[in-house]
Amino acid sequence: MSVTAAQGFEASGVHAGIRRSGPDLALVRSVAPAVGAAVWTTNRVLAAPVLVSQRHLAVAEPQAVVVNAGVANAATGAAGLADAELTAAETAQALDLQPEEIVVLSTGVIGVPLPIDKVLGGVRAAAALLVTDGGDAAAAAILTTDRGPKQAALHGDGFTVGAMAKGAGMIHPRLATMLAVVTTDYPLDPGEAIEFLRPAVDESFNRISVDGECSTNDAVVLLANGASNVKRSSQRDEEFGTCLGDVCSALAREIVEDGEGATVLLEMHVSGAATDDEAVAVARRIATSPLVKTAAFGHDPNWGRVLAAAGSAPWNGGFARVDVDRVSMTFDDTAVFERGAPTGAVPSLAGAGVSIGLDLGLGSGTASYLASDLTYDYVRLNAEYTT
Amino acid sequence: MSVTAAQGFEASGVHAGIRRSGPDLALVRSVAPAVGAAVWTTNRVLAAPVLVSQRHLAVAEPQAVVVNAGVANAATGAAGLADAELTAAETAQALDLQPEEIVVLSTGVIGVPLPIDKVLGGVRAAAALLVTDGGDAAAAAILTTDRGPKQAALHGDGFTVGAMAKGAGMIHPRLATMLAVVTTDYPLDPGEAIEFLRPAVDESFNRISVDGECSTNDAVVLLANGASNVKRSSQRDEEFGTCLGDVCSALAREIVEDGEGATVLLEMHVSGAATDDEAVAVARRIATSPLVKTAAFGHDPNWGRVLAAAGSAPWNGGFARVDVDRVSMTFDDTAVFERGAPTGAVPSLAGAGVSIGLDLGLGSGTASYLASDLTYDYVRLNAEYTT
Repeated sequence: MSVTAAQGFEASGVHAGIRRSGPDLALVRSVAPAVGAAVWTTNRVLAAPVLVSQRHLAVAEPQAVVVNAGVANAATGAAGLADAELTAAETAQALDLQPEEIVVLSTGVIGVPLPIDKVLGGVRAAAALLVTDGGDAAAAAILTTDRGPKQAALHGDGFTVGAMAKGAGMIHPRLATMLAVVTTDYPLDPGEAIEFLRPAVDESFNRISVDGECSTNDAVVLLANGASNVKRSSQRDEEFGTCLGDVCSALAREIVEDGEGATVLLEMHVSGAATDDEAVAVARRIATSPLVKTAAFGHDPNWGRVLAAAGSAPWNGGFARVDVDRVSMTFDDTAVFERGAPTGAVPSLAGAGVSIGLDLGLGSGTASYLASDLTYDYVRLNAEYTT
Repeated sequence: MSVTAAQGFEASGVHAGIRRSGPDLALVRSVAPAVGAAVWTTNRVLAAPVLVSQRHLAVAEPQAVVVNAGVANAATGAAGLADAELTAAETAQALDLQPEEIVVLSTGVIGVPLPIDKVLGGVRAAAALLVTDGGDAAAAAILTTDRGPKQAALHGDGFTVGAMAKGAGMIHPRLATMLAVVTTDYPLDPGEAIEFLRPAVDESFNRISVDGECSTNDAVVLLANGASNVKRSSQRDEEFGTCLGDVCSALAREIVEDGEGATVLLEMHVSGAATDDEAVAVARRIATSPLVKTAAFGHDPNWGRVLAAAGSAPWNGGFARVDVDRVSMTFDDTAVFERGAPTGAVPSLAGAGVSIGLDLGLGSGTASYLASDLTYDYVRLNAEYTT
């Protein structure tokens, strides 16, 4: 159940010395020629590895992904771009590939130069250690504030999708604000990978929030090498799309469950919105509300805060449409609000999860969203992160 | 320096019993006939007192404002609307006014019925206690999680502007997400009050953030009774506008300084944006970033988080324009980032305030914004608020 679960992939993870201790550099490569695609953060401030990798993907199919943790190589100017290119070049040389066939990903502190000598040494060490069961080692080497590795794999009819991800803070997707590498031995043609990847990301990584932040670095990369030799059909294509979506969703859930300081998992299910877009806007607004998230931490059934958040969901230059007289809401299975009036019922929120059902009563728009709670530990982790 | 600083206003505050202890109901009335206006929350879920007061202001000039703390009377259905109307009617009867001349404001927990008998008793008690130096008593009676009362007054050339406000959490303006009552003895004609109030609010209460939340209840109300008998001129009108803006700005700053759990005041000054709108979007995004706000709490000069926030400021369906190679940034007086590259300087952030200067280098758009930090106490206050 790792990024090397599919046939024809190797991976490794090493301690390059970017972080004080622990593994901090991972390598994933396809042994057979692969096609691929990536979905990137939409932040206007893009890290050097993102810019370099976008340039590479525009001219070549990706064959390997190199990831370093500890330093994001973002807001590092021209020196940062040169460092990302050097990392790709060293990886290409070690693997007998072209630099443009390498995707470079970084995660960690923004505004700090990459310790390039350590990174290049790490690349050489990792290349020498590549093995077909190296997925676990790679998954451990891309973590920052994560409590543990995040991996998933699914077997389809004759093919496999495997993946690893990192992410605990600065998590709030407008496309992919974390790192994930997904591999498959399903055969795809050049240009097809993005058609499968985009909807999978949109329904998984783009439906979670830890803290509403959008990173400068993050990415989901898919490599597909066809090593399964399975015969394609429209039915198999559909099954592959489902497997890919399910793997992404499993990792997305792991990221929220491992959200910085998280103790409670919030599941939002918005229905009855005027449009799907507005359902997403409302779900996202609730998922990012500090008052909803602190109430969840306090196991406090303060559903009024959910309503207040729902009424102020940015959409189309204003707020998404909500008519409180048509709104009904449940906390787990308890109806707390029905068509504009409180029911008086008080739900028990003793568990480690709460499911909020919000029916806006306006149309058929629906959306689901996962979020973590806002806790003392989130504040502690982020007040003490760099100094 | 209170809401009764201007001539011809009386106020009072009493313990009506809505909260367990302390004053919880305030009354402000103009003795001379007044004109007025209000700016309301833009939340789609509007509290009953907001709906009732909007209806009143559409048909009559406001002569008195009644405020209760403890219960927001929001998401309370038809019963809530009836309670707000009863509150206005009782106030009108006690003051020999028409119900439509009363503005009703509530603040507190959402989704809980107003204890109407206590409120009506409080209204009668407060009406009997109205005095020209009752501003302090009124200011104390509108607080919820505030650490103390918020008042301001300024004297112009022959006239006065006085005000009180409350607000500590659920503070993030898209128009007026807190309560403020502003009084003046400057003479305004019917219909004019809103022309003065709207720009004053836009540059003050709409430029602060404690937690990015937008309340269901909040409002800024202006009453102007002309009791100064000062002669109007375009110069005096301008001076009045300035006084009004300065009073609102002073209260806005008090609200942020008293933000729930706040220990550090963040001042954002964005310049060089492509447009003023984008400057506001960027400043607001930084002001609401949990990572920036926890770093401020930790006195951590983690300026990379400011850049990451600046690059993901929602604007016009996407993000506000930022080209990192043109960006320069200061923390207090230390330049940390210059035209796309780190300077290597590390600012000391020992104090109780930090001023962040962000020059986007694109145009002439500017905006300032005030925010509080995100602390353990914010989490504690909001995890334990209702239960």
